[in-house]
Order: sequence, then C-alpha cells, then structure tokens
Amino acid sequence: MSVSQATQLRPVIGIIGFGAFGRLMARYLAPHMALRVYDPRPAEPNGQSYGAVRTDLAAVARCPVVILAVPVSSLAAVVSTIAPHLRPGTLVVDVGSVKMEPVAIMRAGLPQGVEILGTHPLFGPQSAADGIAGLRIAVCPVSGRSGRRAAAFLRKVLKLKVIVTTPEAHDREAAAVQGLTHLIARVLVAMEPLPTHMTTRSFSLLMQAVDMVRHDAPEVFEAIERSNPFAAEVRQRFFSLAAHVEADLARDG
Amino acid sequence: MSVSQATQLRPVIGIIGFGAFGRLMARYLAPHMALRVYDPRPAEPNGQSYGAVRTDLAAVARCPVVILAVPVSSLAAVVSTIAPHLRPGTLVVDVGSVKMEPVAIMRAGLPQGVEILGTHPLFGPQSAADGIAGLRIAVCPVSGRSGRRAAAFLRKVLKLKVIVTTPEAHDREAAAVQGLTHLIARVLVAMEPLPTHMTTRSFSLLMQAVDMVRHDAPEVFEAIERSNPFAAEVRQRFFSLAAHVEADLARDG
Repeated sequence: MSVSQATQLRPVIGIIGFGAFGRLMARYLAPHMALRVYDPRPAEPNGQSYGAVRTDLAAVARCPVVILAVPVSSLAAVVSTIAPHLRPGTLVVDVGSVKMEPVAIMRAGLPQGVEILGTHPLFGPQSAADGIAGLRIAVCPVSGRSGRRAAAFLRKVLKLKVIVTTPEAHDREAAAVQGLTHLIARVLVAMEPLPTHMTTRSFSLLMQAVDMVRHDAPEVFEAIERSNPFAAEVRQRFFSLAAHVEADLARDG
Repeated sequence: MSVSQATQLRPVIGIIGFGAFGRLMARYLAPHMALRVYDPRPAEPNGQSYGAVRTDLAAVARCPVVILAVPVSSLAAVVSTIAPHLRPGTLVVDVGSVKMEPVAIMRAGLPQGVEILGTHPLFGPQSAADGIAGLRIAVCPVSGRSGRRAAAFLRKVLKLKVIVTTPEAHDREAAAVQGLTHLIARVLVAMEPLPTHMTTRSFSLLMQAVDMVRHDAPEVFEAIERSNPFAAEVRQRFFSLAAHVEADLARDG
C-alpha cells in the first residue's frame, strides 16, 4: 500500500497555524490521522512536520475536522476567512488558553451547520516533552455531537485527562492556574540570573515551573493575562496580598 | 552491651531547641551519636525523640559539640545563657536560615577557645521527607578546626552536598532563593482555595514548591525575610518588576 493510499484511508484533519503548538498536535495526531496544515509563514528549513502536508487555507478548511491553532488575537480574522469554505457538518476546534472569547468568536463567525468544540490543552511543548499521556485537556462542547466523539478520542487514544467544562468556569480557573504561573514566571525570568547552586528543593520546583512556560510564544502570555476576563482580578489579588505581607514585615521590624 | 554502655562509646552531641528542625536533626544524627537535648517547652506526649535524652541547658552546653536549633531571634539570649557552661574546644554550630547575624552573635557572645561553625541546612521537614542524602547544606567555618571534621561528617556520613561559603555570600544567595520562595508561597497560601483539578504541570510544580514551606515555623519566615539584610531589596525588585508587567498589560490592552 502506497503512502497516498494509506493517507486516503485515515480520517483527515486540517490544522490552521503550524507554530509550536500546531507541531506538537501534529506529532501526536499523525499516527492516527492524515494531516493537512496551513500557516502563512514559510516552513522552517529543518522544522519537523510529522508527515503533515502543507496546503492552502481553503483546502484545509474543507477537511471534516479543522483545528484552529492560531493566537486568540488572530482568531476572529481566521474564522471569517475560512467560513465560506467550511462544509456542513465540519467540526471546528480551537485550542486557545482562554475559552469565553474564542467560543464567542466561533459562535458568531462560523456558519450554521458547522459543529464547534472549544478545547484548552493544559500543556505545551515543555510539559509534553516526555509524552502527553496523563496530561489534561479542558473541553467545552458548544454545538453538534461530534465533540463527544472527539473527547472520546482524546481520552481513549491520546490518554489525556479530559475535563468537560463551560467557557466561563474554564476561564475562572485558568485565571488562577495560568494567570499566576505566567505572572510569577515572567517576573522571575526578569530577575535572572538567579542562584543555581545554593538552592532549596522548593526553589528548584519554582524554577522548574518557570522552565515549563519560559519559552511559550508571547501570544500565550497575552491570551492568558489579557484575553481572560478574570486574569486582571487575580493579579490584583496577588499584588494586594503581597503588599500586605510587605507591610507586615515593615511594621513589626 | 547495654544501651548506656553503647551511649558512652559514641560521640555526644548537645542540641538546644527541639522544634521541627531539632527533631529532624535528631532523626539523622541518632544512628551515629548520643544526643542530649534541651528545650524549654515540655516534650509533646507522642512526640518522637529518636533516642535523644532530655536534660537541662547546662548539661547540654557541656557536650563537646553543641548545636543551636533555636530561632535566630532567640539566638543572642541562648548564646549568653550557655556561654559560662561551655568547655574550651567545644564546637558550637548554628543552623539558622541566615548566616551574617547568627555568626556575628556567636563571635560576640561565645567565649575564647570555643570553635564556631555556621551552617544552613537547605532543607526542612517537608523537603527531607524522603531522606536527606543528596540535599544541600551551606557551611561557614568561623573559628577552630573542628568545622572541617564536621563538614566531612556531613558529606561522607549524611551524604549531604556541602557548600562552603561566607556568611555574606550565603545571605546574598539565600535572599533570592528563600526570600522569593517564601514570599510567593505566603501570598499563594493567602489566595487559597486555588484550583486543584484543572491544573497545568507548571502550576502543580508551583504548588509543590508552596507545599515544601507552608508548614515551616513562623520563625523561619521571619529569619528569611527579616534577618537577611538583602531580603527586602530582593522583594522590592520582585514587586517593581511585577508592577512593570502589570503596566505593560494595562498600556497596550
């Protein structure tokens, strides 16, 4: 059986956006699906594509499943561009770090008859370095019934822990989980060089947490801190409690 | 051979202060030494003493090695109380989280002829839960030659990583390593409850770092943030860089 025959027999998935996370998905989807990808940037000369075939945006949009792996800030533009090319019954999936804004954009911009699934894989290239089995993904079913089949695939085949939630509940938790981690990581990276020798286990864990996110694309930080409607409030609470700690230290000193 | 005979043959170490860290030391020293301890608080009814014998302060001070496991804030009082009871050649060791202040107190308050070793075990009851082999201890030799033998014991018998340093170099590094960890941990604990379900690996590592220090005695936080002359400056840098991050988010939003 030729490669092209094998490709014909497997489900076809389109990926729009082939950055760090698009490639991470391709690595784990390639054994199960034929992949068509579109990215406006040219392919990196030595970049791994995991057998994904580059093609034009319209061709990717005609796949039965289309994953939008673009920054949240570009999502509205991408949705409006692909909308005319999508077939009825297509499952459109986003993978953004927030869920309220992307789900609202997809609801508003995608045609009737397209099924929508919001997802947030709670991992990235660093945390998935040793594989994705056991890692978490939040899933917000929006419309259609294909989302359920997709969730079963994530759980059974990719061995992810699937957390079914709503966009608002997701964004409230993510504001704390990712809002705090990325804020703290950004500040600690700015303080470097930090000690590497005379360290405690607690400090090493803290720096491991930083290492998980320090190479994330700037768009990830933007989505987490800016597109999440609850993130500013979490940061304010962090700053306010930190100011209390400082005031206590100043007062009794 | 009776227990008391065995005790006679082993080196005798006195421990002043039998709190969480005093007991942790007893656990790892007991197989190698006979231990005499003094703590003004009565023994806890079900507290583990690891074979350490409780006695009065003067008796502990007459041991050939005396470890001061008391809060930095009590150290000056303890040093002045034990000074008259110490024998020439006694090795006095402290285990405080800072080194400049304790070493200055011991230099000023201990009699001539007593040998002094400042140490900072870079671990506590939580981080040592699975044993201490491979963990780190900073060591500042101050006077006498027994410190060297003690360092060899820590390295060879207890399998610790011994970092020989000066009180000032120690306090500069500890201001970042422990100052940041304990500040961040204190603020995150104040923000609880935090999500436990929809978490990332980075957030889990951050919370593991918090768990390492959340049960530390309040005196540990005090020593790290208040008795370290460089800690306030590190906190100010953290707050100032955090304010920059926040200002950037506010400006371009």
